[in-house]
Amino acid sequence: MNTQHVSIALGERSYSILIGAGLLDCADAFGAAPEAAGNGRALIVSNETVAPLYARRLAQTLSGRHASVQILALPDGEAYKNWQTLNLIFDALLQQGADRKTTLYALGGGVVGDITGFAAACYMRGVPFVQVPTTLLAQVDSSVGGKTAINHPLGKNMIGAFYQPQRVVCDLDAIKTLPARELSAGLAEVIKYGPIADMAFLDWVEAHLPALRACEPQALAHAVRRSCEIKAQVVGADEREAGLRAILNFGHTFGHAIEAGMGYGAWLHGEAVGAGMVMAAMLSQELGLADAAFVQRLTAIIAAASLPVHGPVLNAADNAGRYLELMRLDKKTLAGEIRFVLVDGLGQAIVRGAPDALVRRVIDRCCAAPA
Amino acid sequence: MNTQHVSIALGERSYSILIGAGLLDCADAFGAAPEAAGNGRALIVSNETVAPLYARRLAQTLSGRHASVQILALPDGEAYKNWQTLNLIFDALLQQGADRKTTLYALGGGVVGDITGFAAACYMRGVPFVQVPTTLLAQVDSSVGGKTAINHPLGKNMIGAFYQPQRVVCDLDAIKTLPARELSAGLAEVIKYGPIADMAFLDWVEAHLPALRACEPQALAHAVRRSCEIKAQVVGADEREAGLRAILNFGHTFGHAIEAGMGYGAWLHGEAVGAGMVMAAMLSQELGLADAAFVQRLTAIIAAASLPVHGPVLNAADNAGRYLELMRLDKKTLAGEIRFVLVDGLGQAIVRGAPDALVRRVIDRCCAAPA
Repeated sequence: MNTQHVSIALGERSYSILIGAGLLDCADAFGAAPEAAGNGRALIVSNETVAPLYARRLAQTLSGRHASVQILALPDGEAYKNWQTLNLIFDALLQQGADRKTTLYALGGGVVGDITGFAAACYMRGVPFVQVPTTLLAQVDSSVGGKTAINHPLGKNMIGAFYQPQRVVCDLDAIKTLPARELSAGLAEVIKYGPIADMAFLDWVEAHLPALRACEPQALAHAVRRSCEIKAQVVGADEREAGLRAILNFGHTFGHAIEAGMGYGAWLHGEAVGAGMVMAAMLSQELGLADAAFVQRLTAIIAAASLPVHGPVLNAADNAGRYLELMRLDKKTLAGEIRFVLVDGLGQAIVRGAPDALVRRVIDRCCAAPA
Repeated sequence: MNTQHVSIALGERSYSILIGAGLLDCADAFGAAPEAAGNGRALIVSNETVAPLYARRLAQTLSGRHASVQILALPDGEAYKNWQTLNLIFDALLQQGADRKTTLYALGGGVVGDITGFAAACYMRGVPFVQVPTTLLAQVDSSVGGKTAINHPLGKNMIGAFYQPQRVVCDLDAIKTLPARELSAGLAEVIKYGPIADMAFLDWVEAHLPALRACEPQALAHAVRRSCEIKAQVVGADEREAGLRAILNFGHTFGHAIEAGMGYGAWLHGEAVGAGMVMAAMLSQELGLADAAFVQRLTAIIAAASLPVHGPVLNAADNAGRYLELMRLDKKTLAGEIRFVLVDGLGQAIVRGAPDALVRRVIDRCCAAPA
């Protein structure tokens, strides 16, 4: 199977996404040697789970490109996507005397990519970085498009930057070592692309869910490539989320409330997005944008990916009120109005507000205990 | 005296610098009312020294532009330009439910401008901000050009972003309330522009130092305008310091070592730049770029501005070694080589390395006790 390329067109910040098996061992996948070959340093930022599996292999692959390659393993998990962990990266960079030509490599899932990208954006006001995503979620979504961030106790991804990587290298082999729960979490973002942009892709995903869950190489390759293509198109049209880009957050407004309400890390991001997409589809139906059959079908696909289709109860006394309170902290909120990504069931999304009463009805419906 | 305008040309990130007396009370100085007039919130970020003098007046001036205007007073001083203080801004924004259309106003000196600009760059990945500098140093240098940052225990301005304000509003009246020491510190950056870009301006500064130190309005207006013009020209040609922009750091490589070595805040930034310019001029002479007469003249001008012309002893056993160690942490350092901004005495600057032995000689010469 050949390596596939997806380009993301952002003028002077354009870059390539490479997708293939075994790329971690392939020096060419990381591009032509840099100008001052062998001169710049590199820091591979990973976490305690991923580093033992892949960090030394990547360091070996990069050894011809950099004067030195160091490895930093952060604690693993969304709960550590904070300033304290970010500072571990700055400490490592300063202690090794890293300069403005030092390249950061983010080796891991979405948390490692987000925090490493933000470190690269801020260290000396910006150093180069490369995304080497090892989870399905990071390969199909978070590593592409330049959104970087850390969490604040009062809100997810509240502190961050739009900062594009030099390149994204997706080794499909890495997905094979993922726990099933993480694989399902990644499928949530794959499923997302259909309703917002390409219903034919949703058909394909529906038909290939068993192959994807079995990590069948051709199926994975197609899912990653098509997801990246859609994301590249949207990001290329709206890098800084002035408008269109917000559609990529389908399921995320409800999802972020679930993650924050349960405590970061209790639900995986993809799990929260799974239940969140069900809620967003139900809200689309309440507003007359989508029909019941679409909601039913999407819910079935999400369930078939082993993702939750019921939201958790965040507050026994006023559950919907708690969701609303948390959602008002979402970055898409404007002048107190929560902005939802809604879909029409035909592959188109819009971003708009909705009456609280309808939102409450949807939350009550979706958080009811499964039959 | 009329309000003067300087434009800074950065494509879609272009903006105006307004310079005049009484602008803090002039709503028009802050531009046309925003699109959603009265809809966006505002947070004025200041410090405990400046807020009591000007924050309420600015809030009053802005009251017609924003749905709400809040004030946050940070602790005062370079020692507080750190993550903990930055987080006070994020806490205030999140507690008041600030969204992506909330505008931050940086009301104060260089520290307030740097930290507020960085908060604006990071909050929700970027919100608008306006610089309202109240010190001479901030008006002629730090508020212009989009460099924002906080300090790390291991280095000054190590964590930051290039992030341009919407506008810079310089009220010359604010300079009149500055302590003499702060005024002198600002003059260091005014003096800087001559040797790197415009020797006629150095002639003018030399002739008008008494008027500037007396805060004579016409002299202040000219010094601020011409400084901003030179800075705008350099930044417009090299926003992200790929090359030319580094010349603005004349005196800063040595100066940063002094600030870090003495502990942030012991020497004012401008004071460290004063002694640092003497060292940089001496190094230029050692390398045959400038002559002794120029070094003598520049040293006399710096002394006449009441700025130090001798560096402090940072380490009794190996003073030059300590300077070198600290300078290797400078952001302009590449592959371990310290990059110095050197001048030819005719208004041109270059950035280059220098042999350690020469640098040591200069440090020894400049740090000798005054005769």
